Amino acid sequence: MKNYIKQNKERFLEELFSILRIPSVSAQAAHKPDMQKCAERLAALLVEAGADMAQVYPTDGNPVVYGEKIIDPSLKTVLIYGHYDVQPAEPLEKWNSNPFEPVIHDDAIWCRGANDDKGQLFMHIKAFEFMVATGQLKHNVKFMFEGEEEIGSPSLPAWVKQNKKMLKSDICLVSDTTMISEKVPSINCGMRGLAYLQVDVIGPNKDLHSGHYGGAIANPINILCEMIASLHDENGKVNIPGFYDKVVELSRKDRKMLSRAPFDMKEYKEFLDIKAVKGEQGYTTMERTGIRPCLDVCGIWGGYTGEGAKTVLPSEAHAKISMRLVPNQVSGEITKLFKKHFEKIAPPYVKVKVTPFEGGDGFLIPISSDAYKAASKAMTEVYGIEPVPSRGGGSIPVLAEVQKILGIDPLLMGFGLERDTIHSPNESYLLKQLFAGMESIALFYRYF
Amino acid sequence: MKNYIKQNKERFLEELFSILRIPSVSAQAAHKPDMQKCAERLAALLVEAGADMAQVYPTDGNPVVYGEKIIDPSLKTVLIYGHYDVQPAEPLEKWNSNPFEPVIHDDAIWCRGANDDKGQLFMHIKAFEFMVATGQLKHNVKFMFEGEEEIGSPSLPAWVKQNKKMLKSDICLVSDTTMISEKVPSINCGMRGLAYLQVDVIGPNKDLHSGHYGGAIANPINILCEMIASLHDENGKVNIPGFYDKVVELSRKDRKMLSRAPFDMKEYKEFLDIKAVKGEQGYTTMERTGIRPCLDVCGIWGGYTGEGAKTVLPSEAHAKISMRLVPNQVSGEITKLFKKHFEKIAPPYVKVKVTPFEGGDGFLIPISSDAYKAASKAMTEVYGIEPVPSRGGGSIPVLAEVQKILGIDPLLMGFGLERDTIHSPNESYLLKQLFAGMESIALFYRYF
Repeated sequence: MKNYIKQNKERFLEELFSILRIPSVSAQAAHKPDMQKCAERLAALLVEAGADMAQVYPTDGNPVVYGEKIIDPSLKTVLIYGHYDVQPAEPLEKWNSNPFEPVIHDDAIWCRGANDDKGQLFMHIKAFEFMVATGQLKHNVKFMFEGEEEIGSPSLPAWVKQNKKMLKSDICLVSDTTMISEKVPSINCGMRGLAYLQVDVIGPNKDLHSGHYGGAIANPINILCEMIASLHDENGKVNIPGFYDKVVELSRKDRKMLSRAPFDMKEYKEFLDIKAVKGEQGYTTMERTGIRPCLDVCGIWGGYTGEGAKTVLPSEAHAKISMRLVPNQVSGEITKLFKKHFEKIAPPYVKVKVTPFEGGDGFLIPISSDAYKAASKAMTEVYGIEPVPSRGGGSIPVLAEVQKILGIDPLLMGFGLERDTIHSPNESYLLKQLFAGMESIALFYRYF
Repeated sequence: MKNYIKQNKERFLEELFSILRIPSVSAQAAHKPDMQKCAERLAALLVEAGADMAQVYPTDGNPVVYGEKIIDPSLKTVLIYGHYDVQPAEPLEKWNSNPFEPVIHDDAIWCRGANDDKGQLFMHIKAFEFMVATGQLKHNVKFMFEGEEEIGSPSLPAWVKQNKKMLKSDICLVSDTTMISEKVPSINCGMRGLAYLQVDVIGPNKDLHSGHYGGAIANPINILCEMIASLHDENGKVNIPGFYDKVVELSRKDRKMLSRAPFDMKEYKEFLDIKAVKGEQGYTTMERTGIRPCLDVCGIWGGYTGEGAKTVLPSEAHAKISMRLVPNQVSGEITKLFKKHFEKIAPPYVKVKVTPFEGGDGFLIPISSDAYKAASKAMTEVYGIEPVPSRGGGSIPVLAEVQKILGIDPLLMGFGLERDTIHSPNESYLLKQLFAGMESIALFYRYF
C-alpha cells in the first residue's frame, strides 16, 4: 500500500483534516451539532472509500456511524470499531495552535483528535479503500464509529444489542491505543476498565467570610482534601473496603512475561520531568498501569480560584474521581463500593453527594487467536520486528460490552505513541505512524 | 440627626449608589480604572459634605483618598479609616441581581460593597456632613480611604509613613465590622491578623492520560489533598511547627468575660444549615473565631473542572490558603513558618511553589479609653442598650500597622450584621443599620 499512500497522500490528509476540524467534544453539550456533522462526514467518507452503504444511526445520545461492504456472507467478517468524539480541548491557553485547526510540523499532525481517535480510525477507512480499489479485499468489512467513547459510551451497548444481527462478525478490530515506542511495536492484549464519579461536599449554605467563621465551622475544601487523602493507604493501595476483592493476582510466570516489554525508568522520568515515581508497593511501573487498579482525582475545584487573594470560607467543594480497573473488577460494583464508602466517611459537618458517570469493565485478549497472529505478522512486516504483547493502562470500556453482546474478541492494533499526549493540550500524531498503521491494517486483511 | 436623615434620605441613597455602581474590585487587574474613578467620586463627596479639601493620592497600587476639615489645631482630631475597594463578585451566577447595580428590597440595599465597606464608610461622610451643616462639629476630622484593603493593603503603610504629619490624630475611627446581632449591638475590641498564600503543586510536565499513567506516578491533586489534610491534627489544631508559639493564652477570667456575649448554637447552625460545628478542641465557637488562630483553604483548583467526565492525570494543582492570626502572632513570621513547613512536607514526586500575599497582624483595643466610652454611650442612646465588647474573627490587617506608625488606637464601631453576607453573593446592608450608624457616629462626636 506504500505506493497508494504516496499517490494519494494530499487527498488523504485533506480528508482527515475535514473531520479534525469538527470540534466533536462529547463532554460538552454545546458541541451537540458537531457530533451529527462529524458523523455525517464519516458516513460520506466510508461510501467514497467503497462501502456498499453507510448511515448515521440516531441513539439516545450521539449518533453511531455504521457502514459495510459485504462481498460474500460465507467469508470472514471484520468489524472495525472507532470513535469520532474527542476529549475537551481545555486548558486552551496551553495549546500552541488552534486545537481544532490541524497543522503539520515536526513530522506530525497537531490537533485535538489527531490520534485519539479520528487519526486512528481514519487509517481503517484508507486501508479499506486500498483493498477495495486494488481488488484485494477478501473479507466482509463492517464499520461502527461511535460518538461517546470519551464519556463512557452510554448509548452504544443498547444500539449494539438492537443491531446484533447486522453487526455479526468474526473479530472486532480497533486502533485506539498506543505502541510501547516507535522502535518497539506492540499489540495491546488487555485494557483496564473504568469507574468515574463526581463528588460534591457541601458545608454552610452560602460562601462565608473566612475571618468571621474560620476555625469555628468545617471548611468543605479542607474536608474534601481529608476525604480524598484517606482514599489511599500508606502503601499506595486504594483504601476502599472490597476494592481489591475481585482483582486477579497474576502468576509469577505471567508477570515475568509482561516484564519482557522494554522499559527505561530514566527516560520515563525525563519524559515526564519528575524526580520519582509513585504507586502501589510491590509492583513495577509497568505493572501499576497494566495489571493493577488505581484511583486518581481528575479534577478538583471550590472557593475562589481567580486572581489575587480573596478570603472566603466556601460553601462547596467538588472533585472528579476516576478509578482504573483490571479484570475481573466490575465497574458497576466498584462504583457502588466507592459511593457507599465515600458517604460513610463523610463527617457530620458536611453533606456529601456522589454522582456516578458511565464506566466499563476491563478485558483480556487471547494471544493464541488467528486475529492476533495475523496482526502480529502484519506489523512485523511493516516495522521489521515482531510486536510485543502488552497490557494497556487506559480503558475503552465499551469494548468489554461489545465483546459480551456480540461474542467476538476485540483486537487492539494501536499506532499511537506516548509523545502524542492525547487528552492533553497539543495532541499530535506522527505522519509515519499514520501511514504505517494503514499499511499494517492492509496487511492484516491479507493474513487474516 | 434623625430628622436630617429623613429630609435627605433620597439624596443620601443616590450618593451611596453612585459609589456602589463603580466595580472597584482590587483583586482583579481589569478593574484598575474603576479604582481611580471610585476614589475621585469619594473625594468629590467629601468636599460636598463640608471638607476643607479632599484629594486622590497616587500610590504604588490603588490611590488613597484623603480629605480633612481642620477647625482648630488645638481640638481633638478624629481620623476616619475606610476602604472603597470590594471583594470580587464571583460566583456571579449565585447573585439574584447585578452585583454592581444596587437595588432596595426587604428593607436593605443589595449590592457588592453595600456594607463592606462602601456602605459603612458612607455613614461617616454623612454624619460629618450633618455635624458641619448644623454647626455642631467640635473636632478636626481627617478621612483616609484606601483601595486595597481586600488584597491586604500593600501600599497604605508606606503612604501613612510618608504622610505621618498630615495624618496626626487622637483616634482612628473605623466602621468595617459587624455587631453581634440586630438586638445586641457590640463594639469590636480586637481583630485577628491574616497570612495568605497560594500553593502550587507540580507533577508531570504535562496533563496525562489517566489510564496510561494512573497508578504509576503521583497525581498532583491527590498529593495536594494529602498535604492540606496534614495541616490539621486530630484535635483541630493547625499542624505547623511553631504556629502557636506566640499565641496569647487568655486567663479564665478574660475568657469568662468574652463568653458573656450572647450566642445561640441552634440559631447559628440553622443560619448556616449545618448539622455540627467543627474547630479546635477545648474552645467554644465564639473563642474559635475570637481568640484562636485557624487555617482555611479559600480556594482549590486543578485538572478538568468542566462538564462531564474527562479522564486526565493533571500536571498541576493549586490552592489559596488563609490563616487568621491572634495577638501576638506576627503575619510575616507565620507566612515564613508555613512556607518552610509546606516545602518540607512536599514529597519527592512533586515540585512545590509557595507564594505569599500581603497579610497583617491582629490587635487589641483598650475598653477603658475615652474613645471606647464615647462610642459606647452613643450606641447606647441609639439602640437603647449598652453595646457588648466583642472580639472579631475577621482581619483589617492594616489597622495594626496604622496603630504602630501613627501611635493611635483604632476604634471599631461596625454596623454590619451576619445576614449581610459580605464577601459572598447577595451582599446587603439594612437601611436601618445604615441610618443607625450615621446617628451613632454623630453622637460619638458629641461625646468624644
